[in-house]
Amino acid sequence: MKVVVAPGDGIGPEVIAPAVDVLKIFHPEWEYSQVYLGYECWKRTGDPLSQTTRSALKEADLILFGAITTPPDPAYKSVILTIRKELDLYANLRPVFGSGFDILIVRENTEGLYSGIEWEEKDRACTIRLVTEEGSRRIARFASSCARRRRRHLTIGNKANILKSDVFFVRICQEEAEKIDVSVDKKYIDALVLDVLQHPERYDVIVTTNIFGDILSDAAAYLEGGLGMLPSANIGKDHALFEPVHGSAPDIAGKGIANPIAAIRCISLLLKYAQERENAKIVEAAIQKVLADGIKTPDLGGKAGTKEVGEAVIKEI
Amino acid sequence: MKVVVAPGDGIGPEVIAPAVDVLKIFHPEWEYSQVYLGYECWKRTGDPLSQTTRSALKEADLILFGAITTPPDPAYKSVILTIRKELDLYANLRPVFGSGFDILIVRENTEGLYSGIEWEEKDRACTIRLVTEEGSRRIARFASSCARRRRRHLTIGNKANILKSDVFFVRICQEEAEKIDVSVDKKYIDALVLDVLQHPERYDVIVTTNIFGDILSDAAAYLEGGLGMLPSANIGKDHALFEPVHGSAPDIAGKGIANPIAAIRCISLLLKYAQERENAKIVEAAIQKVLADGIKTPDLGGKAGTKEVGEAVIKEI
Ligand SMILES: CC(C)[C@H](C(=O)O)[C@@H](O)C(=O)O
Ligand SMILES: CC(C)[C@H](C(=O)O)[C@@H](O)C(=O)O
Repeated sequence: MKVVVAPGDGIGPEVIAPAVDVLKIFHPEWEYSQVYLGYECWKRTGDPLSQTTRSALKEADLILFGAITTPPDPAYKSVILTIRKELDLYANLRPVFGSGFDILIVRENTEGLYSGIEWEEKDRACTIRLVTEEGSRRIARFASSCARRRRRHLTIGNKANILKSDVFFVRICQEEAEKIDVSVDKKYIDALVLDVLQHPERYDVIVTTNIFGDILSDAAAYLEGGLGMLPSANIGKDHALFEPVHGSAPDIAGKGIANPIAAIRCISLLLKYAQERENAKIVEAAIQKVLADGIKTPDLGGKAGTKEVGEAVIKEI
Repeated sequence: MKVVVAPGDGIGPEVIAPAVDVLKIFHPEWEYSQVYLGYECWKRTGDPLSQTTRSALKEADLILFGAITTPPDPAYKSVILTIRKELDLYANLRPVFGSGFDILIVRENTEGLYSGIEWEEKDRACTIRLVTEEGSRRIARFASSCARRRRRHLTIGNKANILKSDVFFVRICQEEAEKIDVSVDKKYIDALVLDVLQHPERYDVIVTTNIFGDILSDAAAYLEGGLGMLPSANIGKDHALFEPVHGSAPDIAGKGIANPIAAIRCISLLLKYAQERENAKIVEAAIQKVLADGIKTPDLGGKAGTKEVGEAVIKEI
């Protein structure tokens, strides 16, 4: 396996380092390399994502992504969006779990309101929400097969009472789920966001379109106390990119106190993706143990540094 | 003032009755009439919203709307959506308040993804997200002037990092807020939904486009324990419609146990809209007192019926 590490900006490099160490325990034999991208890279070189970096990413099987700073400059195009498009990472996964609930949010990651088809006329601006059959089928298949390996239930987050494009999306999701015998229910996205907050135990896998997934997953992060501890995966046919949900946190960068748990959880997700469920569980169990032992960074009320938490997890493993 | 009452389906008539009684305490002199609409009406007459009803609504200054059942029949067009369009009720207001926070969500109510401009081709379905200058300016002006009467702060919920139509929307909102000296900040809708849950005290007025407002307001309802107690207003240049956020609850309809608080809170909103801030406060205070006295319907763990709660509020007033 070719693993490309993209540490990025701010605390990215600090949290990615222990994550790579964890992965190397299980797979010292994989081929590791590193690329430079993001805001700092843009300031130094004028390009946040060079051709060399793009080629390296395209050759990777697995990508470990740290965090990037996105400046409020409209000329700056989001690096992560470009990568999703170029590598066709069509499924964005966000597991959210806690005591009594275990939800997997599967977000379509390439179309919907992120179509990029937009224009401005004199007195109006329009964006096309694009839902294609191919795009819907592949995300529906992906989500259904996740559900089959879990509690065999799929919830389709939609707004088909308003959007014909969601009538289309829902129909295709139902078809794909039925094919592999996964039970389905449909819920309007507004009601779904509230119900996930109130009754998270009712959900197994949730599939939804791009921007609804974006909002739903941030809302669901409330159940885990925010974005700080959550990993995510962006998955395509040929590549998979793993990324902590938190940002680059420039205010604490370089201080050695950033929480590496989200980045290390990315390794757990990565191992699951590589069909190594047992190894994935070992990583998650080690994290739980370290947290239970009170070895925590300041954001969790502890006194440990990034390195100390990383080393503690490695020792547990 | 012409008040038209539209009780609708399910528990609609039960909860609207005490609300009308409350309004009549303050304004026995207003002209009241009633219209028949909704799902039951559709089953009996084949039309959920007849021409006669439409005309009556168009002549109303104030509309009190109960609740409607929307069948999963794709041929049935949502009554509330039709009314919003026909009466051009461009601002959807949802106040959310509790201990230490008091937020007013102002949702654009006529365009965005609710444009109705959509089509299906062989292998794809598209919906246009339409953001017009006129539509944005009037909602921005409305939200800014609400903010000016409150804590003079406006948050613009948007996804301008993805949507050019939101770059457009944000710019217009900023212009309108600055004109009347209301301070502004911008927040991406995904991060905003999470931050409202985690730090509701940071927000005063939030303005956003149609579907983002739809989702955000349901998420914010989590802070108040769900949709059951919340009122909403749909406001246009010539008309205003007040509606509890909860649905028609067919399972408890006719039992006399539906909670009338959301409907009575609509009267408080209505009085505020009519510039009767003191009267609005009297209604809200009476509600608080009745709840504190433990006179509650079963959904709040009490034993009182709809009538008893309504009468208790009226006695307090
Ligand atoms: C940074 C932004 C473009 C991105 C998105 O909207 O997808 C982020 O919110 C996410 O969820 O990964
Ligand atoms: C019933 C539905 C069409 C409506 C909407 O989407 O606006 C509802 O969710 C609301 O918030 O009033």
